[in-house]
Amino acid sequence: MFRELHRSSHSFARTGELTTPHGVVYTPAFVGVATRASIKAVEPEILTGLGIEMVISNAYHLHLRPGEDVVAQLGGLHAFSGWRGPTMTDSGGFQVFSLGAGKEHGVGKVASVFPGSAPEVPRRSGGRGLVRLSEEGAAFRSILDGSSHLFTPESVMTIERKLGADIILPLDECTSPLHDYAYTRDAMERTHRWARRATAAFRLLADDPTFPNPSQALFGIVQGGAYEDLRRESARVIGEMGFDGFAVGGSLGRSKDDMAHVLDWTVPQLPTNRPRHLLGIGEIEDIFACVERGIDTFDCAAPTRMARNGTVFLKGAPRHRINLRNATFRTDDRPIDPTCDCPTCRSHSRGYLQHLCRSGELSYYRLATIHNLRFLVKLLDDVRAAVASERLPNLAREWDVTPA
Amino acid sequence: MFRELHRSSHSFARTGELTTPHGVVYTPAFVGVATRASIKAVEPEILTGLGIEMVISNAYHLHLRPGEDVVAQLGGLHAFSGWRGPTMTDSGGFQVFSLGAGKEHGVGKVASVFPGSAPEVPRRSGGRGLVRLSEEGAAFRSILDGSSHLFTPESVMTIERKLGADIILPLDECTSPLHDYAYTRDAMERTHRWARRATAAFRLLADDPTFPNPSQALFGIVQGGAYEDLRRESARVIGEMGFDGFAVGGSLGRSKDDMAHVLDWTVPQLPTNRPRHLLGIGEIEDIFACVERGIDTFDCAAPTRMARNGTVFLKGAPRHRINLRNATFRTDDRPIDPTCDCPTCRSHSRGYLQHLCRSGELSYYRLATIHNLRFLVKLLDDVRAAVASERLPNLAREWDVTPA
Repeated sequence: MFRELHRSSHSFARTGELTTPHGVVYTPAFVGVATRASIKAVEPEILTGLGIEMVISNAYHLHLRPGEDVVAQLGGLHAFSGWRGPTMTDSGGFQVFSLGAGKEHGVGKVASVFPGSAPEVPRRSGGRGLVRLSEEGAAFRSILDGSSHLFTPESVMTIERKLGADIILPLDECTSPLHDYAYTRDAMERTHRWARRATAAFRLLADDPTFPNPSQALFGIVQGGAYEDLRRESARVIGEMGFDGFAVGGSLGRSKDDMAHVLDWTVPQLPTNRPRHLLGIGEIEDIFACVERGIDTFDCAAPTRMARNGTVFLKGAPRHRINLRNATFRTDDRPIDPTCDCPTCRSHSRGYLQHLCRSGELSYYRLATIHNLRFLVKLLDDVRAAVASERLPNLAREWDVTPA
Repeated sequence: MFRELHRSSHSFARTGELTTPHGVVYTPAFVGVATRASIKAVEPEILTGLGIEMVISNAYHLHLRPGEDVVAQLGGLHAFSGWRGPTMTDSGGFQVFSLGAGKEHGVGKVASVFPGSAPEVPRRSGGRGLVRLSEEGAAFRSILDGSSHLFTPESVMTIERKLGADIILPLDECTSPLHDYAYTRDAMERTHRWARRATAAFRLLADDPTFPNPSQALFGIVQGGAYEDLRRESARVIGEMGFDGFAVGGSLGRSKDDMAHVLDWTVPQLPTNRPRHLLGIGEIEDIFACVERGIDTFDCAAPTRMARNGTVFLKGAPRHRINLRNATFRTDDRPIDPTCDCPTCRSHSRGYLQHLCRSGELSYYRLATIHNLRFLVKLLDDVRAAVASERLPNLAREWDVTPA
């Protein structure tokens, strides 16, 4: 499913062609975050025009609402959402565990599964969520209605088979930067055992004709926190399980340097003929650092969330972004970026967008999101061309990004 | 600016052609409500494709944010919003007074200007808003920041000249159904005096080259509540002031019968060679009742507000609407209306829309609004054709609307 097109002579950067049952993704590529089968504030039918090649939805969120059976009855994610292109689903391990549950339940990045505590013990998160972790899987309460749910490596495969994305990810235990070495190792080893169970379940479910997308690919998730030996071990173990591709998950440490190290330890251990996805990263400087270290695809909710908060990308501005709420844009009749070809920049001024943003007009969210998506797509086009012509460092300098 | 094309032989219904500096509106027509220079949840550039011919914005809201000077600096409403078609602005009398202020400040439809109280006395609404009414005009506090503002017939003309809509409305005092006869008469007579002052100010401002749209038309507003003699008198007085067209404003009584009576008293007093707009009405049965009584254009926020709440139009359903939140649509793979040509019905199922709606996904609001707008445009196309061929009663029966 993955073909390397060009490999850099002086880094792990590469270009490639990722073929899925719903089309080809040219890598490196940005994957749009469509958590609940919709990139927030934009309709699926505009994505192709923006150049988005793949989106990633979330099995946990879609399990809770509307439920994987509803999505399956409506023909699977592609027919359900109207987005007919390549699609991934994350398992929701992130949401069930630590970072995710902690964040969603308002307790910040502190793990809701206490570091080092023994399995089978009930663990509370912020007094609201409740996750029980065992070798079997993770039991938790719905954040929507309090109902009880059990995620096992097998049940998550069933959910994702029913959702029908082209690339699916197994249940993993996502550790946080606050977990100690011992707990991170325990969790990693459990994640490896779960990965084996997921692989078996994935194969068992392959022949069920009621599932919407029989040719799904299963990616393995590398864990191990910010610990060198664990990351190397996890990459080697997961790399040998026959997965169709890989995702780098879990804690990437506490700084951009930590993230770079994690990738430096991980990527060389993985089979080179398989695609590598990075979960949840998308700052401009991160993009360069990740591509240099061999990441093919990555997703991040930040660019669309930033847009909704008023922050839009503009090359050359400080950190390549401006905040439309800034008073200097009140009567600015220029588009966000005069060189941009997105529908927003072709039709609207910074002054009008500021007015919509300040007024809380719903049309604002879509217009700003469209610009940020298109900006990233074009940046990745440039990154791809730069890798192919061995000019990535030049492009990084042009973007004022210091090589990590 | 208005040319009657066909007049019904048995009612006041008619078709017409309303020419503005930014294009022609074929009447009867639905006018989209773009209070803050944006129809909520949809981008201006899609409106032409939906068949929307005219939008109405609100001088009061745009005065408070971003301010008429900002809009003027950005080239007036057309350049500001990117909607290049025919545009009206309401003065905001409704928002400043009674119904409007009461509603916005959470005190319901009870007037914030107490019925019968003498001018110049401070009047409180819900402890928050504050409107001082005098012969000069109305002083009020901004709902955004508490700042003080004075609306006079003259200042509102300046605001609307700067906004630059094609059709503008003068400041009026909008009375509520709870105002008694004496107060309604007082307010009507004051509105007439204000109309004369507005006309004078409008002419004085005609030659200022700094305004974005020199060929604006000024419509007069008929008041008089639900009192027959007042409505007849107001229509006659306003009708003789040389306005380019007319709007029926204020209280239309407490029932659909009352509304019909108000129109029966009003329309025959108005010059037939001028267009007649009805402010704030848009239920399907109201459309038929109003067109039969000679209304050419009307605006209503209800169809777009309903859409955001989950209610979308479907001919033949009870009241020609369905609620997408209804459990029966959970796995319904049909579009809202299989015969509809709107982008939403061409791309999405009721099941997906329900999911987006229940999940609070921002993309939902746009998709549902687009359908309801397109539905009304098509209904008005049919109404127009029916009037032209003397078949409006047949169409009303087809829509199961009882003639009022």
